[in-house]
Amino acid sequence: MDKIRVSIVGATGYSGKELIRILLKHPYIKLIHLVSTSYVGQNINEVYPEFKAQLDKELSDLDLNKIKEDSDLVFTALPHTISLNIVPELLSQRKIKVIDLSADFRLKDADNYYNWYQKEHSTESRELLKEAVYGLPELYKDKIKTSPLVANPGCYPTSAILGLAPLLAYHLAEPKGIIIDAKSGTSGAGRKLSLGLHFPECNENFKAYKCLMHNHIPEIEQELSQLYNGYQGKKKESQYQEIIISFTPHLLPISRGILSTCYLNLVKDYDIGEILSFYKDFYHNSPFVRIFNPPDLPEIRFVQLTNYCDIGFAKDKRAGVIKVISALDNLTKGASGQAVQNMNIMYGLPEDTGLN
Amino acid sequence: MDKIRVSIVGATGYSGKELIRILLKHPYIKLIHLVSTSYVGQNINEVYPEFKAQLDKELSDLDLNKIKEDSDLVFTALPHTISLNIVPELLSQRKIKVIDLSADFRLKDADNYYNWYQKEHSTESRELLKEAVYGLPELYKDKIKTSPLVANPGCYPTSAILGLAPLLAYHLAEPKGIIIDAKSGTSGAGRKLSLGLHFPECNENFKAYKCLMHNHIPEIEQELSQLYNGYQGKKKESQYQEIIISFTPHLLPISRGILSTCYLNLVKDYDIGEILSFYKDFYHNSPFVRIFNPPDLPEIRFVQLTNYCDIGFAKDKRAGVIKVISALDNLTKGASGQAVQNMNIMYGLPEDTGLN
Amino acid sequence: MDKIRVSIVGATGYSGKELIRILLKHPYIKLIHLVSTSYVGQNINEVYPEFKAQLDKELSDLDLNKIKEDSDLVFTALPHTISLNIVPELLSQRKIKVIDLSADFRLKDADNYYNWYQKEHSTESRELLKEAVYGLPELYKDKIKTSPLVANPGCYPTSAILGLAPLLAYHLAEPKGIIIDAKSGTSGAGRKLSLGLHFPECNENFKAYKCLMHNHIPEIEQELSQLYNGYQGKKKESQYQEIIISFTPHLLPISRGILSTCYLNLVKDYDIGEILSFYKDFYHNSPFVRIFNPPDLPEIRFVQLTNYCDIGFAKDKRAGVIKVISALDNLTKGASGQAVQNMNIMYGLPEDTGLN
Amino acid sequence: MDKIRVSIVGATGYSGKELIRILLKHPYIKLIHLVSTSYVGQNINEVYPEFKAQLDKELSDLDLNKIKEDSDLVFTALPHTISLNIVPELLSQRKIKVIDLSADFRLKDADNYYNWYQKEHSTESRELLKEAVYGLPELYKDKIKTSPLVANPGCYPTSAILGLAPLLAYHLAEPKGIIIDAKSGTSGAGRKLSLGLHFPECNENFKAYKCLMHNHIPEIEQELSQLYNGYQGKKKESQYQEIIISFTPHLLPISRGILSTCYLNLVKDYDIGEILSFYKDFYHNSPFVRIFNPPDLPEIRFVQLTNYCDIGFAKDKRAGVIKVISALDNLTKGASGQAVQNMNIMYGLPEDTGLN
Repeated sequence: MDKIRVSIVGATGYSGKELIRILLKHPYIKLIHLVSTSYVGQNINEVYPEFKAQLDKELSDLDLNKIKEDSDLVFTALPHTISLNIVPELLSQRKIKVIDLSADFRLKDADNYYNWYQKEHSTESRELLKEAVYGLPELYKDKIKTSPLVANPGCYPTSAILGLAPLLAYHLAEPKGIIIDAKSGTSGAGRKLSLGLHFPECNENFKAYKCLMHNHIPEIEQELSQLYNGYQGKKKESQYQEIIISFTPHLLPISRGILSTCYLNLVKDYDIGEILSFYKDFYHNSPFVRIFNPPDLPEIRFVQLTNYCDIGFAKDKRAGVIKVISALDNLTKGASGQAVQNMNIMYGLPEDTGLN
Repeated sequence: MDKIRVSIVGATGYSGKELIRILLKHPYIKLIHLVSTSYVGQNINEVYPEFKAQLDKELSDLDLNKIKEDSDLVFTALPHTISLNIVPELLSQRKIKVIDLSADFRLKDADNYYNWYQKEHSTESRELLKEAVYGLPELYKDKIKTSPLVANPGCYPTSAILGLAPLLAYHLAEPKGIIIDAKSGTSGAGRKLSLGLHFPECNENFKAYKCLMHNHIPEIEQELSQLYNGYQGKKKESQYQEIIISFTPHLLPISRGILSTCYLNLVKDYDIGEILSFYKDFYHNSPFVRIFNPPDLPEIRFVQLTNYCDIGFAKDKRAGVIKVISALDNLTKGASGQAVQNMNIMYGLPEDTGLN
Repeated sequence: MDKIRVSIVGATGYSGKELIRILLKHPYIKLIHLVSTSYVGQNINEVYPEFKAQLDKELSDLDLNKIKEDSDLVFTALPHTISLNIVPELLSQRKIKVIDLSADFRLKDADNYYNWYQKEHSTESRELLKEAVYGLPELYKDKIKTSPLVANPGCYPTSAILGLAPLLAYHLAEPKGIIIDAKSGTSGAGRKLSLGLHFPECNENFKAYKCLMHNHIPEIEQELSQLYNGYQGKKKESQYQEIIISFTPHLLPISRGILSTCYLNLVKDYDIGEILSFYKDFYHNSPFVRIFNPPDLPEIRFVQLTNYCDIGFAKDKRAGVIKVISALDNLTKGASGQAVQNMNIMYGLPEDTGLN
Repeated sequence: MDKIRVSIVGATGYSGKELIRILLKHPYIKLIHLVSTSYVGQNINEVYPEFKAQLDKELSDLDLNKIKEDSDLVFTALPHTISLNIVPELLSQRKIKVIDLSADFRLKDADNYYNWYQKEHSTESRELLKEAVYGLPELYKDKIKTSPLVANPGCYPTSAILGLAPLLAYHLAEPKGIIIDAKSGTSGAGRKLSLGLHFPECNENFKAYKCLMHNHIPEIEQELSQLYNGYQGKKKESQYQEIIISFTPHLLPISRGILSTCYLNLVKDYDIGEILSFYKDFYHNSPFVRIFNPPDLPEIRFVQLTNYCDIGFAKDKRAGVIKVISALDNLTKGASGQAVQNMNIMYGLPEDTGLN
């Protein structure tokens, strides 16, 4: 096949860098533009010397016309609210596809987006919400195949949604009282300097942060509600049940990885083997989800630098709680690996091309 | 005053070492015997060169008669189930006091102990359970003053109990559905070699472990139940309500510190200021508990190498949950600092002598 | 081409695991036997869950006949002195090739081997020394092509020899007074438990070790002497000049990577551009050596999980010293990546197959 | 005695914070002003919550008159070149003493200072150079007793000078060809944000930096030259021998600590016992220097959070080199602990008051 001509807008942030790392091994793509407004004119391998001898390419300024002219696919890996303006313009050229790694097109409801991000959609970007698909291949593979705009999920949401999807889609657990205690490595916070990520402040430390208002919450709730209220023709509850979670992110003093520990109440006393079957059934067609047989549990090191999301669980009979633990690499399955997985699906390639 | 003659049985484990570190600065004690069966005959400053120029003392074998002869107080810092035999013999000499850092005398119910530790109490040790006091000064200061045997609490339990005590003692939160998601540094697992603590396996990793059966659970439940069912003449529920928690410990790739994130349901819609007042009231006489004003939250680095337990909280209105976060140093307030605090109380010294 | 049938003896040590990690992506090999005497009968993905969904293979006991029967190439990744007995037997079957990752066949002089490893060669293994080639492709590519036995270099030696080769081969620096101050991550010490690698002892620490007698010294001296006294027809010194180095290894609290800082005296006042040219010339045919233009310098993170050896230098005019800094990943270019590079050369494949 | 009234200018940098940490335990001081231009009006325990319940004090703006009015001693813990203007004004009030933690008064030669710091001394500050004493108590205790201005040494210099002083003072080693390979934790670089200290860039990394021009070099050379050319009436060389070192700093991914590995040539074949005696003799009156008996060697963890400088050595007979390894905590003996040690000496207190 002809190689896919790929451009990256936001090439020097951590997601951009991870995209490059992965795409360098992808057999069917060709890198066209690497856009980085902070490092225009520098070579990517000056900014990231790890790419020396592997990639020799100058970083360019944002020129949408040029990008539209010679790219088939654009990854936008920008801070939240920036893509709102860029993506509509890119997609005005209908032959282009966009995978947006920000939150800007993840929330179906523009008002909800405003509530959490304090930014209004424009008429154009709001219009795009109708065609945007939430890029979690384990849930929306078919839609991803045909959509011009994939809103690539956040790292915490990927971890939480994949961990809980079967419990909610199959109505095994109560939709109320869901607790998600999530722990992320530092690269999740990006490359922007801040005191909290200054080495001597972060090293040998551990803390919760944004304890009540982390903006990954609406995304998790949107998708869990969706799963609970109508997954694949599942008989709906008589009344729509919106899912509200309690979510607490924590900062781990490591570079990469997320582990989420989730607590739910089972609707009846399923035994652990039944639950395991439901999970295996739900993910039987998902090459990047690995289900652990109890009592084995995921650990962050098993998934670092891979596109896997590992899921395990334990049934706490004494307390009547099911604990679900899911682990992934926030930059890979939690961002750029998933984006490439989406690209593969959009272009009819095997889902794991360049990802194993 | 005359100096307290102190011996440590189990002087080269991490709790023993931390005891020495603290006691070196304590103005009213004199170290008599440092017992370490693994390093008999070596100088403590060969095993721990950090003590060079500060402490010059040979490690000795366990000789209970010698210890009883010339010690006023003995810290037993041994693996669980070992103290069961040693402590009764030490206390047969009635002038001696013992602070036991193991779990052996923490559980009031010998059967419960058997269930979690697979070890039977002897007649003598069972007898001692009656006089043993659970050494959490914030709850039992008066009893500690007069008891010959203090069962020094575990690290996770100190963190969880102090974090939740006011909510349960004052019946602010529901006694059911309590979730404790705890994260500990590696020194909590002791100095014994294991693959999970081998540097390349533990570094840059994070995992849950002993997800269903960690033996700190019964201790937490005993004390929370106690608080809920009859704290300081509080009107009891008509019926005794045993508290069952869901507890998940995780291993942090750091050396010292525990942070516990706890989730409870409030019995009514208290506002955050009210909750704060209850906490400040409960701990008004506890110099080592620091309550954080919301939205400030504890972090592990604030308590490392100190005897503080820091507590903060956030009320998650959307989900109807109160989150309590408590942090302490597992070796200090979670073990040896607390043991010295107990010693101070037992000898009528200011509670913080040698601890600030 | 037919796939190379590869077996690994010592598959569960860190070098064995790294071999598997790399070989999983190698298009021209087939894994036959994974031998691990410690984990016989277990699946490799139970020992290393990171391989779940990627490799499903049982670990077997050492059965040399079976290995010889159905393998083309055997990697022996065993503790030093164990290969001495195994390799001769494997090679008695002449169609097999062996890449030995231990030190057992690196030293040309069996007496020197005895001095540093306190182990005598057998008649058979001593005989093999004649055909064994030191597996540093940047120096011995031609010999590696045809040899049945490649003695894969140590991690520190790869870093030191590649860093200094041009200075000595071209007689730019004095052969006396060479100082190599090397720092290695912890995986270099292997998976065997030891107090020094127990997380709380190693974390936040840094130390020198084996300060006078590290057994990588003779290997470095053998190769540097070789380079100095007769590299590619270079006019030899009238007298053979044995090179003696002063080598100090240190332990970094990280998982992977070595950085060596080397100090030499230039024989005359070469300017930095001249030195750079010599390096680029020396390595013009070496795809895994990256020379940094001053003042840029290698860092460990640039090479982690890659097969590159990065080299930089600085000329300290004030002190009359040239500083050479080289960095590599001790498990990749310092062990298993280099082993695969050697395999590629032995089988006529592009040197970087499966390594980029 | 009356308490010493102490003010700190630059109280919220890492050296300032470490001063506070130490002074909180010092029995003979009273903290008067904590000056921090970045955090004026905030409480120190908001900036550093670890001080909650220990110190309740507002940070103030720089008001030299106020400071002079009510302080006996001022610690200036400011970025280099800032003290040049402040210290002369403080000392115009003759009853005040100043301990300056910057480099501004360490170099005796104002031209040399200009060469390395690109900043000219003023007439006043140049005048002060005559009375300023280099605050290394192990060398200048007597002068420190009486000087109004102590120039507190840098962290690397303290480590290097203490490590090498006996070898040079007693003319045991050659003054030429001295190599100092130093490794420092990240707090040495201060609290100012920079990409190199951003957690994901620094974690799991190791690198050399400022390889040729680190501004601690002149300080080390000044003091080593001094020691070599005239330590305590030692017969001088016929000719003054200026010492030039080759110094390479590296960045360790840890929070605190420096370890320097130094390489020198002995002037004759001293045995290790002789060298040990010279060291013990040289430091017989220095409570914070601990000499290790070979083959034991210092490690960073032995000195963290202490004021010790640990020194060990190994004689590399094969290469004819003596290796000296010294370790200290860059914030304590390398900065604020040493400053307090100096204060103790200036006020006739036992040298280790508040430091053990």
